[in-house]
Amino acid sequence: MPQIKAVLSEKDMPRQWYNLAADLPRPPLPPLGPDGKPVSPDMLAPVFPMNLIEQEMSTQRWIDIPEEILELLALWRPSPLYRARRLEKALGTPARIYYKNEGVSPPGSHKPNTAIPQAWYNKQFGIKRLTTETGAGQWGSALAFACALVGLECKVFMVRISFDQKPFRRLMMETWGATCIPSPSNETHAGREILRKMPDTPGSLGIAISEAIEAAVTDTSGQTRYSLGSVLNHVLLHQTIIGLEAKKQLAMFNEKKVDVIIGCAGGGSNFAGLAFPFVADKIAGAKIDIIPVEPASCPKMTRAPYAYDHGDVAKMTPLLPMHSLGHEFVPPPIHAGGLRYHGMAPLVSLAIVEGLLEPRACHQLECYQSAVTWARTEGFIPAPETSHAIAAVIDEAKKAKEEGKEKVILFNWSGHGLMDLTGYDAYFHGKLTDYALPEEELQKSLASIKDLPKPPYQPVKRK
Amino acid sequence: MPQIKAVLSEKDMPRQWYNLAADLPRPPLPPLGPDGKPVSPDMLAPVFPMNLIEQEMSTQRWIDIPEEILELLALWRPSPLYRARRLEKALGTPARIYYKNEGVSPPGSHKPNTAIPQAWYNKQFGIKRLTTETGAGQWGSALAFACALVGLECKVFMVRISFDQKPFRRLMMETWGATCIPSPSNETHAGREILRKMPDTPGSLGIAISEAIEAAVTDTSGQTRYSLGSVLNHVLLHQTIIGLEAKKQLAMFNEKKVDVIIGCAGGGSNFAGLAFPFVADKIAGAKIDIIPVEPASCPKMTRAPYAYDHGDVAKMTPLLPMHSLGHEFVPPPIHAGGLRYHGMAPLVSLAIVEGLLEPRACHQLECYQSAVTWARTEGFIPAPETSHAIAAVIDEAKKAKEEGKEKVILFNWSGHGLMDLTGYDAYFHGKLTDYALPEEELQKSLASIKDLPKPPYQPVKRK
Repeated sequence: MPQIKAVLSEKDMPRQWYNLAADLPRPPLPPLGPDGKPVSPDMLAPVFPMNLIEQEMSTQRWIDIPEEILELLALWRPSPLYRARRLEKALGTPARIYYKNEGVSPPGSHKPNTAIPQAWYNKQFGIKRLTTETGAGQWGSALAFACALVGLECKVFMVRISFDQKPFRRLMMETWGATCIPSPSNETHAGREILRKMPDTPGSLGIAISEAIEAAVTDTSGQTRYSLGSVLNHVLLHQTIIGLEAKKQLAMFNEKKVDVIIGCAGGGSNFAGLAFPFVADKIAGAKIDIIPVEPASCPKMTRAPYAYDHGDVAKMTPLLPMHSLGHEFVPPPIHAGGLRYHGMAPLVSLAIVEGLLEPRACHQLECYQSAVTWARTEGFIPAPETSHAIAAVIDEAKKAKEEGKEKVILFNWSGHGLMDLTGYDAYFHGKLTDYALPEEELQKSLASIKDLPKPPYQPVKRK
Repeated sequence: MPQIKAVLSEKDMPRQWYNLAADLPRPPLPPLGPDGKPVSPDMLAPVFPMNLIEQEMSTQRWIDIPEEILELLALWRPSPLYRARRLEKALGTPARIYYKNEGVSPPGSHKPNTAIPQAWYNKQFGIKRLTTETGAGQWGSALAFACALVGLECKVFMVRISFDQKPFRRLMMETWGATCIPSPSNETHAGREILRKMPDTPGSLGIAISEAIEAAVTDTSGQTRYSLGSVLNHVLLHQTIIGLEAKKQLAMFNEKKVDVIIGCAGGGSNFAGLAFPFVADKIAGAKIDIIPVEPASCPKMTRAPYAYDHGDVAKMTPLLPMHSLGHEFVPPPIHAGGLRYHGMAPLVSLAIVEGLLEPRACHQLECYQSAVTWARTEGFIPAPETSHAIAAVIDEAKKAKEEGKEKVILFNWSGHGLMDLTGYDAYFHGKLTDYALPEEELQKSLASIKDLPKPPYQPVKRK
């Protein structure tokens, strides 16, 4: 029987996370405060616990994973690495396609890889409750799950369009004991302001982040903190367990090298989780194409500048050095809710600036078509976010066929689509269309960052 | 780190299914035709392909699993065996609780374990399309998945109450390329008859089976067959891979023996799949409590007689020797749609008659309470069907605590509940109630089998 997947025992889980900040050619730029000066750890203390702030600012290459976190991750990790033999056959490609199946976690995506450590570190620090935002609901349900297991209260501000489209995600959060409310809400000053100006807004991650941070920092007991599911350095750090496992598992397939790495990228964490350990290899000289994939409707990596910008609409976050469409950007309601964020993780952005990544944008219809091809060959129904990675994988596999090359393609199957089937329904009934952000809209949106400080790094071209 | 789960590589999958028919003290009774005589293989030929009919009638102890089927099962098998350490701790029980996680399959339940072989054997036999029925939608989606992978058309008649409650299940089937219609429908004679008499019926598995069989046997091309997701011998046979894997995995936890085996039972297949390899041990002298769990609203094992009855309302199936509430039974619309069938698998029924099993009935509210406890300790959200097994597990774990006994409890976590969250919603909002079938209703329902032949076996008491 040809090998379909490589499974590791929990004893073989990586014991350390990998920190790309240690290996990038230029050091990461610091986040800036309202005064334009680098923020100090103390300034972040009302938002995050100090143990996570230390991780956020660390440039140490390897960071130990506490034993208790490993024990919780072992509920579903290591995730299996699959070879997509049936898709290869259907495409008639000489490429060998591998994927990490992150859909095996209880909430069904890669998100718990960081939700568990974040909840655990907060608990260690004496925190009693966490607030957060969620787009498609994957992050919110992951944090609800983690808080249930670790023993914290959890409140989730969910982007209204997803709250309406995906009642099941809310029910997951409630089953795990969390509270979930649609954002913008009347519970925060930021939410009320937005509702006053735009009562019919579908909401956005930027708005929901403002609300969640406000709800955390205004709790006078000091026992509430905020938790973010992507973008930040410590979040990406926690996700690197994906790529570290994948390396061991590729060896179980006797693969010596990888030619192409692919992941969809909203805030950047699932992409980074798989890719960063391989970016390290590329920095050391390996020849790998590393491709983050975004929707054409929200094209920060492919069309927006590397800039300093806020992570949220109400400008509550520090200025982060990242590819950004502008913090006032409200993306159209495409079904891949998890990819609707205006900014990209600073570490991913810097890797782009260093010429280490080759970002790509995909259209919605091609993504759904790829997702259906995937479901009918490989069996698992992908999340709409994940379908962006699949579309790029199919492209690369076809290119390998044209070139007659036996390429090894590895991608992150970031989550299943069982909670997102209304998107498939709309696709089957011809209700979806492609939408590329018009240049005029882009420029209008970028106006909000025009007067902010500029990062001092110029992009580097690499071959 | 304490061991959480035992994972096997696909190379360690069992290569044969186990057939309990070979080991039961008395041989299985044959199904009877309309004339009261045993049906011959030829009489079943319009409904099933001959290779599956042979399996259905086989009394061979071990049956080889074809290599191509193993390759398809390897998409998610072997499923992990977990130790529920966090639940144990929450209950303060000395019992060690293990479970097979069958929720890891693409459709999210144990059902594909038989859907894949059934589709494959039909394909081998030259069949082009399959019809079936589905209750909660788990079986329909599993067969849709299997047909997509094997390359068959698939038409699913879905019990109307579930069709309305669970649109996502229909969307899964459609994503895998199947057609799904609510039953009773106007597409069949049987469906039209029911709709004429009971236009507002919520439907039942018995009705849907009638429609699916009719749709298969009336296709004059001869290229359509029917597929059943539970009850029949070959279905239970395919599921035994669960218990066979579990034995290997218990050894990986250094467990030498099991004290209690538990599974929920609708038609009986997930229960049998885990339990039958252990029933063999019990026949050989091992002391094990083996407990199938049913809802109190549909209590065929605990309150109905061992009788000959039809598997469907329209009496299209042969008479099967089984515990049955009567083929006209229409169960109340509790949320565990997969447990709403009037009959129990003949092999499970015979094992009950032989005194090898100790059936138990659970109430809906206790089941949901157990499911929430489970989700908040073990992380995975269970299907409403699975929650019946969990309720019994918690009972047994508490009993072990009272008795101060280090019992080993193993159960089948038959599927996840991500497609069934409306039931949780109803539970959280106090909209669910307990319902035990009133004796008067039971007697009324049993009237439909009064004049049918009686099985010649008398129940045996064992200690």
